[in-house]
Amino acid sequence: MLQIEAVADSTVLRAVSWLPEGAVRLLDQRRMPELVTQDCRDEVEVLAAIRCGVVAGAAAMGVAAAFGVVLAARQLVTPVRSWSQALEPVIAAFAALGPMAANVHWTLGIMRQTLTGLAADVDVPARLLNAAEAIAAADQEANRSMARFGLQLLRRHHSAEQKLMLLGYSGELSGGGGGTAMGVVQAAYRAGVLKEVLVSEASPSQAGSRLAAWELERAGVPHLLMADSAAARIMKCDPVSWVIVGAERIAANGDVITTQGTYALAILAMHHGLRFMVVASTAALDMSLSDGDALEPEVLHGAAGASQPLDVTPVELIDAIVTEKGVIERPDEGKIAKLMSIRRLH
Amino acid sequence: MLQIEAVADSTVLRAVSWLPEGAVRLLDQRRMPELVTQDCRDEVEVLAAIRCGVVAGAAAMGVAAAFGVVLAARQLVTPVRSWSQALEPVIAAFAALGPMAANVHWTLGIMRQTLTGLAADVDVPARLLNAAEAIAAADQEANRSMARFGLQLLRRHHSAEQKLMLLGYSGELSGGGGGTAMGVVQAAYRAGVLKEVLVSEASPSQAGSRLAAWELERAGVPHLLMADSAAARIMKCDPVSWVIVGAERIAANGDVITTQGTYALAILAMHHGLRFMVVASTAALDMSLSDGDALEPEVLHGAAGASQPLDVTPVELIDAIVTEKGVIERPDEGKIAKLMSIRRLH
Repeated sequence: MLQIEAVADSTVLRAVSWLPEGAVRLLDQRRMPELVTQDCRDEVEVLAAIRCGVVAGAAAMGVAAAFGVVLAARQLVTPVRSWSQALEPVIAAFAALGPMAANVHWTLGIMRQTLTGLAADVDVPARLLNAAEAIAAADQEANRSMARFGLQLLRRHHSAEQKLMLLGYSGELSGGGGGTAMGVVQAAYRAGVLKEVLVSEASPSQAGSRLAAWELERAGVPHLLMADSAAARIMKCDPVSWVIVGAERIAANGDVITTQGTYALAILAMHHGLRFMVVASTAALDMSLSDGDALEPEVLHGAAGASQPLDVTPVELIDAIVTEKGVIERPDEGKIAKLMSIRRLH
Repeated sequence: MLQIEAVADSTVLRAVSWLPEGAVRLLDQRRMPELVTQDCRDEVEVLAAIRCGVVAGAAAMGVAAAFGVVLAARQLVTPVRSWSQALEPVIAAFAALGPMAANVHWTLGIMRQTLTGLAADVDVPARLLNAAEAIAAADQEANRSMARFGLQLLRRHHSAEQKLMLLGYSGELSGGGGGTAMGVVQAAYRAGVLKEVLVSEASPSQAGSRLAAWELERAGVPHLLMADSAAARIMKCDPVSWVIVGAERIAANGDVITTQGTYALAILAMHHGLRFMVVASTAALDMSLSDGDALEPEVLHGAAGASQPLDVTPVELIDAIVTEKGVIERPDEGKIAKLMSIRRLH
């Protein structure tokens, strides 16, 4: 473990990075705003770190898991008869850490795919490392696109500066970099269309909201940390125009599984005439899940492995889903299926 | 200050009591479930104790303030030319402690009334003590009536055991004894019509919910302390039938000023088809306040003296107001005015 003593304000923070000597460096999110990193030299250390909450956010967990698989591959004694078979227990262990985090499963799917149909002379650990680095880069690129699309959406609806409400942590450290809902907020600030961000505490954990407030402070974005119980009064008395959240998983019909408290905020937003925006990459879209009600309540409660309590926000309450492929306004099954059929151009 | 070492489970707890030697004993609610009492020998000590949160709940604050006025009267050097004039600064100081707590103002109104038109030879401190003791007894009696009426209301709507949701602290220590919303819950439990109580945390302070949970535990009532952010998910998945809350103040039109978070719960209850009950004595009814929107936001935020953040729940979201004089279903201005015109029979 290593403590970075001084970090300039302009330094880009990375939740997960690969060290050339063959280790994964994690920024311990539990210790923020102290900048403490933890270097993991094998997959067991990465698993333990995720389990303890060192990494938060589905996309960041996905990237950490991908590098964890690389570490496991580098430790296998060659020649390996079946890389797939040898690494499957590790991949399954990572998958079990985030049963609701669709990003993690998407990432592990790519790692599995990389392991299939390999020629005998291929350097498999190097291939896996390439795949993991591509996943991290793709997430960062997706964050940039989402920020751009989210900003366009805000501009389409408003000309004046807006007050936005944010729930849960979706910032720089929640994935490859840039953030989802937080990325839209930061883009709105830079473009001069943001007046203030109200950050809901998201009790019981509150860790995410404190991290979000710290990140907003660091970027100089005007913000206010508020108790969850104040949201309704603020929506009534203050001219807030949008509630913006990230997502752990999105069902095929558009139901969103995310931080507990989102469902309540969505009802309150509808009651007060606010719009509701979900920002998530298509890696969070799970076309095999027909709707949110198909989930076991235990999984949502956090009783069955989810790292935090979650809830389901039905699609009827959502005005827009912003992905890296584009924006779906008034989402439904058909629009989501259509978006998912678009191939990336890059 | 005195620590009571052991208190039997059956002991009745009193937030405020008068000691024959001329002092007010307060049970320090900040220290609960430790049973630590604080004896105040003059009005300055009572004022300081209320200001520090030793006493919580509008009715308990009212009783403490009444005894505080008694202590002040006992210290005046006789002969006193005008008791009213001499005690007015003390009464005003108590009134300023709970700008939203209608009970406190009602209580102080009675103390002021007691001081008018007195014969020259009257023992004024003794008169004031009688008045203060009558206020405490009346509040206790009101709590018993509200519990009875609230139970009747539950029975009128349901035959099977119910799950109820409770917000804020409204128990034995919130007034003369017995509690308001908590009194209904306890009566429902004793009558066998209660399955479980879900206690919402009411962040940011959470002190009230922990006290409520402790009181339910002590009485053996099945309960669960839940994060505010879980309320919507629970309402959707669990068969909760009523949300029950107390009130700091009720406007003439039925808008209710109470613990922050109540407004959100009322919207969520309506969305999920739950009923919403407010339990408060008529001392909380302020006929001079036309509606909740007439209040300054600063007062509700807690910025202007209120001991905790409050919010306004509009009357449209309230199914029933339970008072010691009777129940108003689907309350409105006319029904409230009619109830207030009923004289007490005892």
